[in-house]
Amino acid sequence: MPASNAIASVHSALERVRAERPLVHNITNFVVMNVTANALLALGASPVMAHAPEEVEELAALAGALVLNIGTLSGPWVGSMLLAGRAAAGRGVPVVLDPVGAGASRMRTRTTLDLLHEVRPAILRGNASEILAVAGALDAVDSARLEAIMAGAGATRGVDSAHSGRGVEEVARAVARAAGCVVVVSGAVDTVADARRTAFVSGGSELMTLVTGMGCTATALTGAFAAVVPDPFEAAVAGMAVMSAAGGAAAARSQGPGGMQAQFLDTLYTLDRADLEAQVRVEG
Amino acid sequence: MPASNAIASVHSALERVRAERPLVHNITNFVVMNVTANALLALGASPVMAHAPEEVEELAALAGALVLNIGTLSGPWVGSMLLAGRAAAGRGVPVVLDPVGAGASRMRTRTTLDLLHEVRPAILRGNASEILAVAGALDAVDSARLEAIMAGAGATRGVDSAHSGRGVEEVARAVARAAGCVVVVSGAVDTVADARRTAFVSGGSELMTLVTGMGCTATALTGAFAAVVPDPFEAAVAGMAVMSAAGGAAAARSQGPGGMQAQFLDTLYTLDRADLEAQVRVEG
Amino acid sequence: MPASNAIASVHSALERVRAERPLVHNITNFVVMNVTANALLALGASPVMAHAPEEVEELAALAGALVLNIGTLSGPWVGSMLLAGRAAAGRGVPVVLDPVGAGASRMRTRTTLDLLHEVRPAILRGNASEILAVAGALDAVDSARLEAIMAGAGATRGVDSAHSGRGVEEVARAVARAAGCVVVVSGAVDTVADARRTAFVSGGSELMTLVTGMGCTATALTGAFAAVVPDPFEAAVAGMAVMSAAGGAAAARSQGPGGMQAQFLDTLYTLDRADLEAQVRVEG
Repeated sequence: MPASNAIASVHSALERVRAERPLVHNITNFVVMNVTANALLALGASPVMAHAPEEVEELAALAGALVLNIGTLSGPWVGSMLLAGRAAAGRGVPVVLDPVGAGASRMRTRTTLDLLHEVRPAILRGNASEILAVAGALDAVDSARLEAIMAGAGATRGVDSAHSGRGVEEVARAVARAAGCVVVVSGAVDTVADARRTAFVSGGSELMTLVTGMGCTATALTGAFAAVVPDPFEAAVAGMAVMSAAGGAAAARSQGPGGMQAQFLDTLYTLDRADLEAQVRVEG
Repeated sequence: MPASNAIASVHSALERVRAERPLVHNITNFVVMNVTANALLALGASPVMAHAPEEVEELAALAGALVLNIGTLSGPWVGSMLLAGRAAAGRGVPVVLDPVGAGASRMRTRTTLDLLHEVRPAILRGNASEILAVAGALDAVDSARLEAIMAGAGATRGVDSAHSGRGVEEVARAVARAAGCVVVVSGAVDTVADARRTAFVSGGSELMTLVTGMGCTATALTGAFAAVVPDPFEAAVAGMAVMSAAGGAAAARSQGPGGMQAQFLDTLYTLDRADLEAQVRVEG
Repeated sequence: MPASNAIASVHSALERVRAERPLVHNITNFVVMNVTANALLALGASPVMAHAPEEVEELAALAGALVLNIGTLSGPWVGSMLLAGRAAAGRGVPVVLDPVGAGASRMRTRTTLDLLHEVRPAILRGNASEILAVAGALDAVDSARLEAIMAGAGATRGVDSAHSGRGVEEVARAVARAAGCVVVVSGAVDTVADARRTAFVSGGSELMTLVTGMGCTATALTGAFAAVVPDPFEAAVAGMAVMSAAGGAAAARSQGPGGMQAQFLDTLYTLDRADLEAQVRVEG
């Protein structure tokens, strides 16, 4: 779609979150719980954080969306994610999965696969190394081709660079087809893909990579959009566009990664259509 | 008591916290641990966060007050809250309970009742929906009457509004009698009640509702006051008044919920009698 | 070494962290996870937080350093610290231990001893009361002498004062010999000791004591330095000097403990040799 329509659609999704204040149930990691709860509040959503097996099904069923994030995971938390994820899926509550650290340990990769199979999330959002690991584990991309893409990524100092964009798009599409969900690969340019569509979201700031939990925040905000926007592809584009807009505008007003945290929330709180148009480009 | 006496009493409680630096033991939720520890430090108290069953009795017995908060609860944490709560109660250490999410899941409501029965907290602080849920679970208010109050609350967009104030007061008093403790219902106006007294604390800012953990912070600060002020009713009034004063002054200096967090701590750190007089009204 | 050489050595260690971006694996407490991850990022390192027994050995083996912090500990987390610590030690990955609350509960003191014995950390960093507790538990200092030092510490309102400096140095050296590691005692003046060397780092600000997790942050940053500097004594001096420099400069630009948090990260992010020279003194 033309860029101006894309921004209009992001802005309309933002207005819906603010009007509907969807309840977003998060089973997420200890590092970012405070940060993602605050980002959801600043966006206009209502976060709830809960992980006990005794209550997660009840809460996931009440929620507009469920966000599962495997940072600082442990066996019991994975069990709760499966319980909550099945309860959500069984009632049509969209699930957004963040495979933090997939590829860094066997447990993270295996948990990601288990959640993809058992919960069938609507959206999977990770950085390039996480999505490449998922692609490998799912056999979604021929292994020789995957190695070539990874090597290209390495050669260009991170798969986020323009040079490796084509490889990332290919991997995102392949994982989307294999897992049956929308796939987001975050980077300097974010790639959003499902089996038939691709969009690229650019904006944001390098400074975002020096604040812990910015990726997890992107996933949480995407959860809020998935609660109010029926098409998960459109919800994912809205999530990434709002992150880029708030991150870019906040970085421009910050001295460093400390001040950036408060600026990010303040910017998110007042974000309007002009900010989106000034800060983000959506193509696809 | 006249309003000026009430502020004098809050200010004197604040001076006592700063002079005595009470140790406040918190078993609280993952979302707010950092935030409430910092608020206790900024107030002048000494926080300790600990939840292992092997050590909670030892630490609760050393503390000036124990704060129990059931956000992000799980079975083992509830067990530790019971252990710590009994150890504190057995030594006359006041316990303050925050029933986060009571009414939202059966586990939260049941845990709140268990803690009320087994630990006999000095103070229970929640928002209106939590305290209404406790009232229902305790059969503290006739169920037809409770439904009417809840309906009125709903009709006025949140039980915090002036219109529903009378219902909230009635519920707070009933829960105070049934549970044998001081009850605080936080809102635009905070209601503090025990079996025979009621006070209303007004001040603060709408922006506080967009920062996660402000309610939990109110509970933690109330714990610090309970450690130094013998009358839990007076401690609860002091806790809510200091929250309102710091929150109101901080919001006036903030662009949004991000900047608000730092401003709140800085304001708490320097809060003086003039701030209290400018920002808060205590009636009742 | 002369003071100017010491600062040159700290600055060179800082440059190495920024160039090498070491992966620092943290098993730390819930209160500070977000804060120490952000401090490591602002310094230039790459934090990973993970505690599941299924993955900690894998991650510790990949890391440049392992940081173990016993705040908010529990039985299962202690088990993971032992697993990760042995995996790290077995591969020559330096371990930094923060004995948060040693002396405050039997569980904390015993866990500290277990980790010292089983993991053989390269560096132990605590405040004076924690290191005094370790000294007592290790029988590193004659008990009558230890009591005299503690009494002196008490008499001077905290063992951080200049008056008790001699006692602290004696205890640090004794613990360093008994535990076979570098010992850091944080305070207004930080004492760094191994079996044969002692250094004193001064700088920082009183305001740092009102922000939760500043000690834990010192430990985490020391982990980053231990990953790139072969001599743990030098790494510990660099960690404490950088903390003091960033803390001192940040406090000078802050209104209170709230603003201090963002300023600290922003200062750490841009810290240069001139800041080190202006803010810190290293002697010994």
